[in-house]
Amino acid sequence: MQLQSRHLLGLDGVSKEDITLILDTAESFKNVLKRAIPKVPTLRGKTVVNLFYEPSTRTRFSFELAEKRLSADSVNFSKSTSSISKGEDLKDTIRNIEAMRIDFVVIRHSSPGAAHFLSTCVDASIINAGDGPHEHPTQALLDMMTLREKAGDIAGKKVVIVGDILHSRVARSNIYGLKALGADVGVCGPSTLLPVFIKDMGVTVYPRIEDAIAEADVLNILRIQLERQRGGLFPSLREYRSMFGVTMDRIRQAPKELVIMHPGPINRGVEIDTDVADSRHSVILDQVTNGVAVRMAVLYLLSGGKGKFEGEENE
Amino acid sequence: MQLQSRHLLGLDGVSKEDITLILDTAESFKNVLKRAIPKVPTLRGKTVVNLFYEPSTRTRFSFELAEKRLSADSVNFSKSTSSISKGEDLKDTIRNIEAMRIDFVVIRHSSPGAAHFLSTCVDASIINAGDGPHEHPTQALLDMMTLREKAGDIAGKKVVIVGDILHSRVARSNIYGLKALGADVGVCGPSTLLPVFIKDMGVTVYPRIEDAIAEADVLNILRIQLERQRGGLFPSLREYRSMFGVTMDRIRQAPKELVIMHPGPINRGVEIDTDVADSRHSVILDQVTNGVAVRMAVLYLLSGGKGKFEGEENE
Amino acid sequence: MQLQSRHLLGLDGVSKEDITLILDTAESFKNVLKRAIPKVPTLRGKTVVNLFYEPSTRTRFSFELAEKRLSADSVNFSKSTSSISKGEDLKDTIRNIEAMRIDFVVIRHSSPGAAHFLSTCVDASIINAGDGPHEHPTQALLDMMTLREKAGDIAGKKVVIVGDILHSRVARSNIYGLKALGADVGVCGPSTLLPVFIKDMGVTVYPRIEDAIAEADVLNILRIQLERQRGGLFPSLREYRSMFGVTMDRIRQAPKELVIMHPGPINRGVEIDTDVADSRHSVILDQVTNGVAVRMAVLYLLSGGKGKFEGEENE
Repeated sequence: MQLQSRHLLGLDGVSKEDITLILDTAESFKNVLKRAIPKVPTLRGKTVVNLFYEPSTRTRFSFELAEKRLSADSVNFSKSTSSISKGEDLKDTIRNIEAMRIDFVVIRHSSPGAAHFLSTCVDASIINAGDGPHEHPTQALLDMMTLREKAGDIAGKKVVIVGDILHSRVARSNIYGLKALGADVGVCGPSTLLPVFIKDMGVTVYPRIEDAIAEADVLNILRIQLERQRGGLFPSLREYRSMFGVTMDRIRQAPKELVIMHPGPINRGVEIDTDVADSRHSVILDQVTNGVAVRMAVLYLLSGGKGKFEGEENE
Repeated sequence: MQLQSRHLLGLDGVSKEDITLILDTAESFKNVLKRAIPKVPTLRGKTVVNLFYEPSTRTRFSFELAEKRLSADSVNFSKSTSSISKGEDLKDTIRNIEAMRIDFVVIRHSSPGAAHFLSTCVDASIINAGDGPHEHPTQALLDMMTLREKAGDIAGKKVVIVGDILHSRVARSNIYGLKALGADVGVCGPSTLLPVFIKDMGVTVYPRIEDAIAEADVLNILRIQLERQRGGLFPSLREYRSMFGVTMDRIRQAPKELVIMHPGPINRGVEIDTDVADSRHSVILDQVTNGVAVRMAVLYLLSGGKGKFEGEENE
Repeated sequence: MQLQSRHLLGLDGVSKEDITLILDTAESFKNVLKRAIPKVPTLRGKTVVNLFYEPSTRTRFSFELAEKRLSADSVNFSKSTSSISKGEDLKDTIRNIEAMRIDFVVIRHSSPGAAHFLSTCVDASIINAGDGPHEHPTQALLDMMTLREKAGDIAGKKVVIVGDILHSRVARSNIYGLKALGADVGVCGPSTLLPVFIKDMGVTVYPRIEDAIAEADVLNILRIQLERQRGGLFPSLREYRSMFGVTMDRIRQAPKELVIMHPGPINRGVEIDTDVADSRHSVILDQVTNGVAVRMAVLYLLSGGKGKFEGEENE
C-alpha cells in the first residue's frame, strides 16, 4: 500500500486506510529504533529542509532525529538566523529552496495554510509541522499511535481533548484523525476557548471537566498558552486550574482506567498536576518516543515507500 | 588543470582559464545533481566551517547542500549563537577554529577584506561568501554559469547590471568575472548608487534604464536594499521603480531577446515586476540551481581536484 | 580499562587512573586526527544532543567536530531557537529528549549542578560542557593533555591559575584534576576574585603575580569577564592589567621556562599581552587542537570503549 498523497498537510480528509498505514509503518520503525544501531540507509541522498518559522525544541528534534535515522541529509532554518530579516517572502524562499533540488520540506509557520500554500508551488513533498492554529498532523498521528499501543482499537473509544481548543492545531488534527478511526471525540474547556463551529465537527462539548472525566477513556490535555491570559480569554491560571486542571483528585473520580496524554511542553500545576503527569495513567513520554517513529514513517511513505518497513540492514 | 589559488576570495585578478575551469567543473557536478542519489563521497572526512556573520538563507543553504552532496562534514556558526557576544575577535576565532583542523572556511562578513584577512592567518582554504560591499565570487560564478547555459559564449555579450552598484558585492564580482571572460559590461542606476571609480573598471554607464535595455543582451538586476532609502540615497521606492524598475512594458521595447537575472531575494514590484521575474526571459531559478553545482565545483577544485569531475559512484 | 562512571560531570572525585585513561585515549585519537581522513566509524548510529543554554563558539565546535569524527549523529540546540521561550523547564526538556532515545547529552548551562541534575533523571550519558561557575571538565582535561605533552609528567609541577578564580569553572576543574595527578597548584588574582574556601582546596594563594611567576612551571591564565567590572569586583581593566596582566616583562623574570596556557577567548592586552599569547611559551593553540581529541576520547570511553583507541580503519 502507498499513501494517497505526496504531502502531509493535515488529517482533514485523510482516510482511515491512510492513517492506519502510517501507524502500522511507524510501528515497524519503532522496532528499528530498538536496534543497537537505530539507523537505516532508506533515505540516503535525499534532502530535507526543516523550516521553523516558530520556535520549537521537541518537534524540531523529533524530525531531525527521524531524518538522521533514515540517513537523509538535513538543512535547518530557523527564523532568527535567516534572511527573513531582509523581507524575503515565503513563496520566494520556497521556490529558491526548491531550485536547489530538495525532496522534503518540513515547515512550521504561524499562518494557517502555509504548508498547503507551499504544496501548490513546489515539487517537493511538504510536511506540515504546525501551521498556526490550523493543523499539526504528525502530532495527532503520534497521539493515535500511542493510544493504539496503550488501549488497543481506537474505534469506539471516548477521547476528550481538554483546554484551549480554539487556538489548538493539535486539537484540530486529533479530531479529524480520531473521527476517521471511529473514536468518539469530546472537548472540554472554557467557553471562550471553544470554537463556535465545534459541534459541527461532530464532537461532544463538556463544559465541566468532571463530566468529561466521568465519560472518557482518554484525556488529551492541551498546553495552556500563557499569552492567552493577557488576551482576556481566561481570568487567571489559578482559576483555570480550579475549573479545568487535571488533578489526581479528579482522576480518582473516573469510573474507567483513564489514559492521560499531553503534547507538551507541560505547564505543571496549571493544566495538569505533576503527580498526574508522572503517574501510571500518563503516556506522555511514550508520545515523544513514538513521535520519531511516526515521522520516520511519514518520510518513508511520502518518498514512495510501500507499506510496512521490512527492516533493511544497517548501513 | 588545477586552480591557481588555494582560496576563492574574489574574482578580481582571476584568469579566464580558472573561471572557465570552475564553470566546466560545475557543469559536471550539475549532472551529479540529476542522479537518483545526488551525492558523491569526494570530500568524505573533510571539514567545512560555515561562518555567517550576516543573516543569509539561500547562500548558506546552497553551501550546506554543496557540502553534504560532497559528503563533507559541516559545522555551522551564525552570529546570534556564538561567543561573539563575549567579544572574541575574528582573528582569534579563526585561529582557534583552525587549530581544530579544518579544511575549508566559508565566510560571510560585513567587513570588506574579511576573507582575505583570514587567508593570511590560517592554513585552511577560505571561500568568500560575501564580504561587505566588496566581493561575492560564488554568486558571480553561478551567474556566469547560468548565462553560459542560456546564451552560449559570454565573450562579446552586453551584460548590464542594474541597481545599487555602489554597495553591491554581486556587481563587483560580476564585473571582474564577466570582463575576464570578454563580456561587454554596463551598469545602470541612480547616480548616488554608482561608485565614482566605476568607469575605471571599464564598464559603460547607463543613466537611463531605457538606454540599457536598448543595448543589452542580459540584465542582471540587483536587489534594492530598503535600508538605503533611509540613508537618503534614493527618494522613494515608488520613484525608484518609476525610474529603474524592470517592468514588462520596458522589456517589450528591447530589440534583442533579453535574459533577466537577479541574485535574489527579490523585491517584487520594486526593482523587478512579478511578471518579468516569472517570465520566459527569467533565469532566476536556474541561478539558484546552478549555485549548488558551482559551490561543489569550488570546494572540489580547492581541495586539489583536477578539472572536470568524472563522476565517482555513489557511496 | 574502562571509566568508572557513565557520565562526565566534573573532575571532583575522579581518580588519577580515570584521568590518565582519558588522556592516554585522547593521545590515540590525536593520531586519528592526523590521518588523511580524520574520521572513524566508532559511534555510528549513536546520537548526541548538544544543549547549549549559554553562547559558545569554540566548545560547541570542538564537541561537534569530535562527534562528527566519530561518525555520531548530532542534534543541536541553542537557547535562542528553542521553546525555552515557551517556559519549558530543564527537566521536562531532558526527559522529552531522552524519550527520543539519545545516547549522549552535552550540556552547557548557567546553573551549577545542571549536568548533575540531568544525570539523576535520564539514562543517557551526560557530559558537562560548563555549568555556571562550577565545573568544565573537558577544558581541564585538554589543559592537562597539553601540559603533559609540553612538560612531561604533571606530578610535582607548579601550576598557577591566574585571574578570576571565584567565578571560574575552568579553575575549579583544573584544581581537582591537577591535584589528582599530583601537581602543586597555586592561584593568583585580586582578593575579591578568590573564593573564601580556596585554601581548603589545598592550593597556594599568590596575592602578587610576581611571586607566582617566581615559583611557577606553568601559568594558566583565565579570561577576565568584563561584566565583573560593572559588579565592582575589580576597579578597571587598566588596573587589572597593571597588577595581574601577564606581560613579556614579567615573563622574563621567571627563573624557569614558563608554559603559558589560556582557555580562551583571549582579551589581548588585559589578562595577557599579545606578545606573550603568541610567544614560544604559549601552548594556547595546542590546547584547542587537543580539545577535539579529548572530547573524542570522552565520548568513546563513556560509550563503553576500553582503553586506548586502536585505530579502526576509516569508513
